[in-house]
Amino acid sequence: MPLESYQIAQYNQQHEVAHRRKFEFLAEELGSETTERILGKLIDFQIAIPSWALGTGGTRFGRFAGGGEPRNLEEKIADVGLLHALNRSSGAISLHIPWDIPTDGEAIKQLAASYGLVFDAMNSNTFQDQPNQELSYKFGSLQHTDAAVRTQAINHNIDVIRYGEALGSKSLTVWLSDGSSFPGQLNFRKAFQRTLEGLQEIYAALPADWKIFVEYKAFEPNFYSTTVGDWGQSFLYASKLGPKAYTLVDLGHHLPNANIEQIVSLLLMEEKLGGFHFNDSKYGDDDLTAGSIKPYQLFLIFNELVDGMDTRGMNHASDLGWMIDASHNVKDPLEDLLQSVEAIKLAYAQALLVDRLALEEARTNNDVAAAQELLQNAFRTDLRPLLAEARLRADAALNPVGLYRELSLRNKLIEARGLKAVATGL
Amino acid sequence: MPLESYQIAQYNQQHEVAHRRKFEFLAEELGSETTERILGKLIDFQIAIPSWALGTGGTRFGRFAGGGEPRNLEEKIADVGLLHALNRSSGAISLHIPWDIPTDGEAIKQLAASYGLVFDAMNSNTFQDQPNQELSYKFGSLQHTDAAVRTQAINHNIDVIRYGEALGSKSLTVWLSDGSSFPGQLNFRKAFQRTLEGLQEIYAALPADWKIFVEYKAFEPNFYSTTVGDWGQSFLYASKLGPKAYTLVDLGHHLPNANIEQIVSLLLMEEKLGGFHFNDSKYGDDDLTAGSIKPYQLFLIFNELVDGMDTRGMNHASDLGWMIDASHNVKDPLEDLLQSVEAIKLAYAQALLVDRLALEEARTNNDVAAAQELLQNAFRTDLRPLLAEARLRADAALNPVGLYRELSLRNKLIEARGLKAVATGL
Amino acid sequence: MPLESYQIAQYNQQHEVAHRRKFEFLAEELGSETTERILGKLIDFQIAIPSWALGTGGTRFGRFAGGGEPRNLEEKIADVGLLHALNRSSGAISLHIPWDIPTDGEAIKQLAASYGLVFDAMNSNTFQDQPNQELSYKFGSLQHTDAAVRTQAINHNIDVIRYGEALGSKSLTVWLSDGSSFPGQLNFRKAFQRTLEGLQEIYAALPADWKIFVEYKAFEPNFYSTTVGDWGQSFLYASKLGPKAYTLVDLGHHLPNANIEQIVSLLLMEEKLGGFHFNDSKYGDDDLTAGSIKPYQLFLIFNELVDGMDTRGMNHASDLGWMIDASHNVKDPLEDLLQSVEAIKLAYAQALLVDRLALEEARTNNDVAAAQELLQNAFRTDLRPLLAEARLRADAALNPVGLYRELSLRNKLIEARGLKAVATGL
Amino acid sequence: MPLESYQIAQYNQQHEVAHRRKFEFLAEELGSETTERILGKLIDFQIAIPSWALGTGGTRFGRFAGGGEPRNLEEKIADVGLLHALNRSSGAISLHIPWDIPTDGEAIKQLAASYGLVFDAMNSNTFQDQPNQELSYKFGSLQHTDAAVRTQAINHNIDVIRYGEALGSKSLTVWLSDGSSFPGQLNFRKAFQRTLEGLQEIYAALPADWKIFVEYKAFEPNFYSTTVGDWGQSFLYASKLGPKAYTLVDLGHHLPNANIEQIVSLLLMEEKLGGFHFNDSKYGDDDLTAGSIKPYQLFLIFNELVDGMDTRGMNHASDLGWMIDASHNVKDPLEDLLQSVEAIKLAYAQALLVDRLALEEARTNNDVAAAQELLQNAFRTDLRPLLAEARLRADAALNPVGLYRELSLRNKLIEARGLKAVATGL
Repeated sequence: MPLESYQIAQYNQQHEVAHRRKFEFLAEELGSETTERILGKLIDFQIAIPSWALGTGGTRFGRFAGGGEPRNLEEKIADVGLLHALNRSSGAISLHIPWDIPTDGEAIKQLAASYGLVFDAMNSNTFQDQPNQELSYKFGSLQHTDAAVRTQAINHNIDVIRYGEALGSKSLTVWLSDGSSFPGQLNFRKAFQRTLEGLQEIYAALPADWKIFVEYKAFEPNFYSTTVGDWGQSFLYASKLGPKAYTLVDLGHHLPNANIEQIVSLLLMEEKLGGFHFNDSKYGDDDLTAGSIKPYQLFLIFNELVDGMDTRGMNHASDLGWMIDASHNVKDPLEDLLQSVEAIKLAYAQALLVDRLALEEARTNNDVAAAQELLQNAFRTDLRPLLAEARLRADAALNPVGLYRELSLRNKLIEARGLKAVATGL
Repeated sequence: MPLESYQIAQYNQQHEVAHRRKFEFLAEELGSETTERILGKLIDFQIAIPSWALGTGGTRFGRFAGGGEPRNLEEKIADVGLLHALNRSSGAISLHIPWDIPTDGEAIKQLAASYGLVFDAMNSNTFQDQPNQELSYKFGSLQHTDAAVRTQAINHNIDVIRYGEALGSKSLTVWLSDGSSFPGQLNFRKAFQRTLEGLQEIYAALPADWKIFVEYKAFEPNFYSTTVGDWGQSFLYASKLGPKAYTLVDLGHHLPNANIEQIVSLLLMEEKLGGFHFNDSKYGDDDLTAGSIKPYQLFLIFNELVDGMDTRGMNHASDLGWMIDASHNVKDPLEDLLQSVEAIKLAYAQALLVDRLALEEARTNNDVAAAQELLQNAFRTDLRPLLAEARLRADAALNPVGLYRELSLRNKLIEARGLKAVATGL
Repeated sequence: MPLESYQIAQYNQQHEVAHRRKFEFLAEELGSETTERILGKLIDFQIAIPSWALGTGGTRFGRFAGGGEPRNLEEKIADVGLLHALNRSSGAISLHIPWDIPTDGEAIKQLAASYGLVFDAMNSNTFQDQPNQELSYKFGSLQHTDAAVRTQAINHNIDVIRYGEALGSKSLTVWLSDGSSFPGQLNFRKAFQRTLEGLQEIYAALPADWKIFVEYKAFEPNFYSTTVGDWGQSFLYASKLGPKAYTLVDLGHHLPNANIEQIVSLLLMEEKLGGFHFNDSKYGDDDLTAGSIKPYQLFLIFNELVDGMDTRGMNHASDLGWMIDASHNVKDPLEDLLQSVEAIKLAYAQALLVDRLALEEARTNNDVAAAQELLQNAFRTDLRPLLAEARLRADAALNPVGLYRELSLRNKLIEARGLKAVATGL
Repeated sequence: MPLESYQIAQYNQQHEVAHRRKFEFLAEELGSETTERILGKLIDFQIAIPSWALGTGGTRFGRFAGGGEPRNLEEKIADVGLLHALNRSSGAISLHIPWDIPTDGEAIKQLAASYGLVFDAMNSNTFQDQPNQELSYKFGSLQHTDAAVRTQAINHNIDVIRYGEALGSKSLTVWLSDGSSFPGQLNFRKAFQRTLEGLQEIYAALPADWKIFVEYKAFEPNFYSTTVGDWGQSFLYASKLGPKAYTLVDLGHHLPNANIEQIVSLLLMEEKLGGFHFNDSKYGDDDLTAGSIKPYQLFLIFNELVDGMDTRGMNHASDLGWMIDASHNVKDPLEDLLQSVEAIKLAYAQALLVDRLALEEARTNNDVAAAQELLQNAFRTDLRPLLAEARLRADAALNPVGLYRELSLRNKLIEARGLKAVATGL
């Protein structure tokens, strides 16, 4: 690892005075109880890093590689380890099969553990054809009219579960790109039924303590219909599958102007919210850095999460799956991921700051202006010193991007791996 | 009534030769079995006219009255009677309480029967405050935090059911404008629960042979969240309510680019599709003439309806509620309604023409180009002669708008009712 | 006026210690030069209040009046005077003819001056028919095919200019709702040409030191096309008209996902940006409180404004027209306006805080992550103490909404004007 | 070529009786003057095929090759030749550099001529990095902060012009993907200015009889801003460049719900419409078959084109550039292109059928219902027999897709080129 713990300590020492001044001012404003309550939650909170986000992504028009990208699973784990050392909030990695097949599961597990990492949800891939794949997913996988293709896709998902078991993962995320690009192409009802049957077979293969997350997406790569197209459809599948099945919300997978926070709230109410893929977007599934376009929306989502989870007595750190799912086209992927984690935790901290009693009172009285003020008050408060303090207490860097740049870590990765190293993924 | 049956007969006689030529050419193209099958369905198909669509509508910026609008329920019934006489496809009227309170139900029922009309779904109104209303719906109705407001709204809906029973209606449409305009204003889960409880009380008051339709809408008049905001939420309510509860789809109540035909298909699959509010739109709930903006989408919706209803053995004419819900700002409302009915029946006829066996075969083979051709072939065929023939056989006018204009019926209505007559409604 | 200056002083005294602590911490963080630079700009910055925003607005579905609304122009001016006393940032009022005809211009001007108010842009209305109006705008005004209607609309605009001259206003805002609701209704090119000719006649009537603002809007109340539909069309008109004509940007008048800040930047580049109508929205022209839905977007717009105006050497306070244009359906209008002004000034302060040299350097180096951090750093900093300090120095209330509520000013207005008072407007 | 002219003749002979019956019925309906007028226009009308649309396209998630794709420029020309033989409406090919570098221009020109093909607009590519390219377009091309990158992009465009001159092309289409993915990344005004300067250098290199088309696109592959983002921006560039510069409209490059037909109309009015990229879409730049999603919109666009071009006395066949730009993911590209050409010509024929005198009269009278009927009447008339007759007279196949399938032409291409042949392109 190109980063030693003494370097973090040294860096923090240099910046501690400035930090201390801000933190103490804020802590006095908030009061120590609130301060410690939020700090505790922030320290516990971990956001999984997907293995495919460590390299430069691309669009259908081109891909501009960055240099020093991880060339194999071991290097991907090392990169997540580096992120986790910097922020102590990225203690999990989410693998994608077949891009990251762990041929020796035990060794990989130990390697991850050496960085303090565990394995989050496993991800299957039935939206691409692999070089030696027998049957094509050109016309879908679980929805396919040909039973042999469906069986291939089901078996692939079961394989992914098996890989995950070896690594200690406890969940499978199924994102199906299945759908149609032209009116007439698909019998919607039959496609739904075939997909449901396929999911049922996969569900049957789940270990007792596993969950399955059914992800939905409004469009792309199919441009007319998607067979798991919105939260309503995902909810239908999850309800029919059983108690281990949940809906997964990717922030970029909605139609324009969708009220995502309300969807989140209702899924929590129905006990079917499984987890999140965080990113931000302006137009479609743009896969931009979390919080870079609509930070207030991110806060509003966390506002519903905190409220709904508390109402159900859920554990913030472990009862939902938290993952970034972004694509890094014009930034260093590691810097981008650090920025995403920071934005997510900031929104979480702001949501934890909301005065819920006062908010419910304002709601009861239909005092709309006061309800707005209560949310905006939390959002406008600068809570970055809390995040820094949480990192300091967890032995992470006060400013992860700052230290990453000061130590020229990207250059070190390029020296080690080369300028032309390209990670597997999109 | 300003229109006598001999006038229709005369008009048809004048245009019959031209019609006959087109119809015979088409009938030969289609074959007599197909021709008669579609004709039979078209003759049976009736689309309800909402009582509030008979006057000039408006926007929040202004309303430009047209002249000769119906001044009371009797005149509204007369207008629908006129439409039905012209096209024999508008044999039902959908009332809105309190805009159209039938003080003497039996007399109103007989008046309607004299025009060959029955009463379709009853509509309640908890989105406006009426002059002598005790409590305000400013902050919602069934979602309201104040139980007294909820009770008022529940009682109003039960009143509407009672009015409907007297008229022979068999269903209640509940459109709730409930929601919020600002983040923080509403506890989404509590609003859902309160709304559900209210609906349950209304459901309990339904006669045995009635249905309740839960309409959804993405936005407007609330601009942040809506408490029945999409098909998924409506489906949740309808499922929790029971077998008499259904989802109602208004074509203008979706987010941009929504695939409405897929929603229709899935609701049919789940046996929860209750009916339709037809209109067209480009931006939001624009309430334009059906088929005036996206006629192919209208056809695709009917394509799913025909397919899904046939699969379930449903009766096209009676097992779903068919209604227009449009607002007429720049056209004569009666002409506009005639255009809407024509567009809806055209889409229906096109859907009936689709070669379903060939379509399913193309789908099975993933022959996307062929599937597209099959749909486009039906859509591109000019089926207007079939619609005219269905009218001819039902003693309606070959060209309803043509006859309406030839007889200057609007002028007659203005003479009878005045230029400043303004109908109740939006 | 229900508010005396001693009450403000008293209120501020009570809250000054808490304020001082926050302000001093912030001032030390920012350094005194930055602090004073931003404070100076904030004190100068004035946002005009439209006369029609002082009452409860509505939607096409209903209007729920609030109580104590101003019943005439004098009371509207008093309400703006009250806002200005509370925040010292609302020192201008924007009138709408014919809702606010100043029969005695001089007296109205003196009344406004007594509150420290001047008259901002005058607004004409050719989107509604007034009771005694000769010709209808049902099919548009300046675009109308009938020359008499166009002449009526032109003359109305010239009347509005004359009223404005008497009040010391220096600009005319022309918002045309002209357009069409159905394909075929309008010859787009002829409508453009007729509209241009009408604007040219109005332009010719402008006093030498006046500006005309051509507002654009994508849709509503016309739902197929709008004759001044986007910035490109407004720019075409403004270019053809001449140097006194400018484009006016209303934040709610765009298609979904539009990049408004880029539009602002380009209009500044072309010297054709005239001013703003501030509000916020999620779906369409929702007319919500500024900054209540997308505060980061509001900041990004100000970021372009500060940058572009500085580049051109423009005066922030006077070279553009700044106005709120919102509709208040579920809040007290005065509270809502105070919240809007606060959000606008916060965004402005954040934009003033951006380190522009560092930003340009990051851009030059394509250091996207750094550019993002620079903007987010400004946005995440809690600058509310600066806004409070600016108010304190200007003898406004430290917390305008707080004082407004503490003194129960709405109740006092209701006592004076009655519960059923309804303001003219939408 | 796998298709001989005798095969077309044979095929047409088999289907001529059925065709003749339909055509004669239609011709009698329309009258011979109208029939012949439209037929003449249809026979003349040619839609260019882009060289990159001949292979299976893809999305960022995957690409599923079809088999028998053209492996080089010669085979691409052969494929367009095949299309043209089938429909006699695809008599031009549009090349993309560097995917289709014509090393021997004269030979390529003669090869194309042997199929009856000419060369339409040349397309440059500065949105991807080529293997041996010196500088990267990761951060844009003409907008780039580094002058060396800009120079490289300018020189590339000039190279493309030179290639085009050798082939007899007369225009250059410049689509710039330049923009930004994150707020802060770009100085919008400087990016505009740099881009303008680059375009000016390219413009200066244009031969006297050439045009340059400046294409705009709202988003993708950049997801925050685009430097030529809408028609207004393209118009600004084109106006500043001079009379040889025009705007190019790609139907998929707009924000949701944009009124494209109005844009087309205004660009024609301003004499700045250069040409079209046809495709269809539901969500974004979906690049689906023309007319497959919104055929009525396609008709409305042609309605404006016919009207605007006639008003200006423009030649329908040659004064604008007509090109398909689609991506074929789930269909045989050649079948897809045949379907697109058919849909475009159908929309054109419908637009030619509109009774323009009656339409203008309805508009003058604000008879909105009549205006709608006039457009719908043209759209609902089944004009496919006219298209077939135009093909028959031009020695093309009565049903191009039908003959293509009957002769198993795809299989012949696969036999000749192999199953794994992959065309250059996206």
